[in-house]
Amino acid sequence: MAQGQGDYRILHEADLRDHLAGLPDLTARLGGDPAAWDITEVGDGNLNLVFIVKGTSGGVAVKQALPYVRLVGESWPLPLSRAHYEYLALSRQAELAPGLVPALLHHDETLALTVMELLEPHIIMRKGLVAGTQYPGFAGDITTFMARTLFFTSDLALSAAEKKEGIAAFAGNHALCKITEDLIFTDPYRIAEQNRWTAPYLDALAVSLRDDMELHVAVSRLKLKFMASPEALLHGDLHTGSIMVTASQTRVIDPEFAFYGPMGFDVGAVIANLLMAYFASAGHERAPGERAAFEAWVLETIEQVWIGFARKFLELWRTAGTGDAYPVSLFAGPQGATRLEAERQTYMQRLFTEVVGFAAAKTIRRIFGLAHNIDFELIEDAKTRAISEARAVRLARAMMVETGTFRTIGDVTGAARKLRNWMPELSG
Amino acid sequence: MAQGQGDYRILHEADLRDHLAGLPDLTARLGGDPAAWDITEVGDGNLNLVFIVKGTSGGVAVKQALPYVRLVGESWPLPLSRAHYEYLALSRQAELAPGLVPALLHHDETLALTVMELLEPHIIMRKGLVAGTQYPGFAGDITTFMARTLFFTSDLALSAAEKKEGIAAFAGNHALCKITEDLIFTDPYRIAEQNRWTAPYLDALAVSLRDDMELHVAVSRLKLKFMASPEALLHGDLHTGSIMVTASQTRVIDPEFAFYGPMGFDVGAVIANLLMAYFASAGHERAPGERAAFEAWVLETIEQVWIGFARKFLELWRTAGTGDAYPVSLFAGPQGATRLEAERQTYMQRLFTEVVGFAAAKTIRRIFGLAHNIDFELIEDAKTRAISEARAVRLARAMMVETGTFRTIGDVTGAARKLRNWMPELSG
Repeated sequence: MAQGQGDYRILHEADLRDHLAGLPDLTARLGGDPAAWDITEVGDGNLNLVFIVKGTSGGVAVKQALPYVRLVGESWPLPLSRAHYEYLALSRQAELAPGLVPALLHHDETLALTVMELLEPHIIMRKGLVAGTQYPGFAGDITTFMARTLFFTSDLALSAAEKKEGIAAFAGNHALCKITEDLIFTDPYRIAEQNRWTAPYLDALAVSLRDDMELHVAVSRLKLKFMASPEALLHGDLHTGSIMVTASQTRVIDPEFAFYGPMGFDVGAVIANLLMAYFASAGHERAPGERAAFEAWVLETIEQVWIGFARKFLELWRTAGTGDAYPVSLFAGPQGATRLEAERQTYMQRLFTEVVGFAAAKTIRRIFGLAHNIDFELIEDAKTRAISEARAVRLARAMMVETGTFRTIGDVTGAARKLRNWMPELSG
Repeated sequence: MAQGQGDYRILHEADLRDHLAGLPDLTARLGGDPAAWDITEVGDGNLNLVFIVKGTSGGVAVKQALPYVRLVGESWPLPLSRAHYEYLALSRQAELAPGLVPALLHHDETLALTVMELLEPHIIMRKGLVAGTQYPGFAGDITTFMARTLFFTSDLALSAAEKKEGIAAFAGNHALCKITEDLIFTDPYRIAEQNRWTAPYLDALAVSLRDDMELHVAVSRLKLKFMASPEALLHGDLHTGSIMVTASQTRVIDPEFAFYGPMGFDVGAVIANLLMAYFASAGHERAPGERAAFEAWVLETIEQVWIGFARKFLELWRTAGTGDAYPVSLFAGPQGATRLEAERQTYMQRLFTEVVGFAAAKTIRRIFGLAHNIDFELIEDAKTRAISEARAVRLARAMMVETGTFRTIGDVTGAARKLRNWMPELSG
């Protein structure tokens, strides 16, 4: 994979203007004199530069990878090749889930730069959730996205040769995987310089996580699964900050963490971030019960995410299960069909168990690790925030260590509901 | 990966002589006038040409891949690139398990040709087992080979980045994996042109395997695990025909099926082939009880293979477990050490379950699939052979479908012992 680091340079507004002006498709789309284009750097993510460019007839979004982690700085280098993997993943997702990712307009391997459709008036879903906005179409869209991108890149749909080629094509994205391995599956459970939490209120809880050997075994099993279970092409970072929404539309963005991994990691990411939106909601209410309808919608959406995903995934398996796994030739006749259907249910139950575990890991890292989220961070009163966070952690700990007691998604939402007003003991 | 098929040609004796004569290291090793070297084609495997070349001072073995499956002919093409993967795997095995593989002397990518140390007076272990020969050092050697090659290429020893690079390096060997996927995990369980068995005696058993939906589910789970669990660099074809022995030495050969897969597949292959040697033994005795000591040794060796492998693997994990999985930093202090050790035992128990399943699959394919083995084939009387084969299949079916009832390797050998004189109902 050509990284072309030799000719790479970080683009500033003027360079970007010149670069785009040289691309006829884009100049036509933007319209007007390139000198008059409005260019603004808006990146608020952890890793990249993001520009919005507007001309007289339209706009585009431009993403450029930086050779280091933007959140931390040049001391933490990160390969530009992630832009290549993001481009690969986005292309595949566009084929598999048309209309649910931004349209790809241009990619420059050397500059680690991708130009995409400007999503307007979409906002980052997480911001909407903090504001208490409901997205009635979200569960339907995200389950279509996940069912189709995961199923069609799995052994249930592909030949073993195609699958191995896919795994190899993304194997080089290991630096991004390593971020997940460290920040999600390791650091929150040990002393690490980059960890932070709502001190002093969660100090004792932080210590208890570091001393909790059952939790360490559970998170280590999940980590191994993350590293060595290439079930399907994952988005790899499917939280509500990687999803843009309007009242009626959903677009999944930023698949630079894409690689072949366990399906439960993507589904668990969506569920974890909805659970955090639920627990954070209490911290955003100005009057008791003000956000009750929103909170009920969040829990219902969590249920619909799993149920809808499972239903769509199973339907694809039944109608398009032509991969090398579970060959139909071994399940001929009515008895074979019945037995295969029972096995499909067993498969989904196993997958659900992994979703529960991964969702827990994705929750704990946002409360004790490096990267937090605005669901909690925007709760200004630290004690109020700590209470919301402690509730989420209590559920996450149970989901990770007593995973088997969560047999259905209703067990997860039921446990969340019970913790809505639970008062944790805080430090400090 | 350069396959160089453009300049590839199948070597005949004269071409090979010229090729080797141009390699100073080899001419020195062989000695004498190249024109006087004794060159014999001895390949009796399923895929390749194998030459033995002898000069005045020494000999070498030369293996050349053919662009098709030798056992079947040009109608079944097979990529020459397998010689590249074999070379890669052999190089890695030589580093990890020195003295347990033949020394590599020369590799030519274009000709898909590898020159190795001539193993003399070693014989193919399977031939020795048919003759009733005991190999007291075998269990010790093969457990060292498996523990070291599997552990040091796993997430327990490697960084996630190194592991992903290894997976990618072998991903292109999917045509060889496909042979395993079809011939071991699929064809024996359905009507397939290449299937054969000891007819008519096993006709009813063949039908019952094709109708056995519990077995089809079990073998499909194993197939999926084979395709999508890159735990470690496997030999990939570790039967007793891939092992050369003397009374005191063991050498593992022919790793052309190498890829990153589930560890239980290699360990299961060794155990399956010893189990088949055990059940075949009754068919080779000229007088009742004649081979009792040999058979007792085989069962004891099966036990030692698992017990020795598990002991050595665990010891490596304890002393060299510096990979990204189960990071020691999460298991500090005496409580952490105790909990991690318990988890290691859980890990090995899970691995044992997979060994049992894969051993069963490796057994059934040798009795109902394309490639049989001389353990059974050299039993001349078809009915006697069918009796031995039916005993092996009865155990294998239980191992695959009731895997959980085999908790220890003693459960496996105990079940084999009970079937030693069991009389199956035969067809015909």
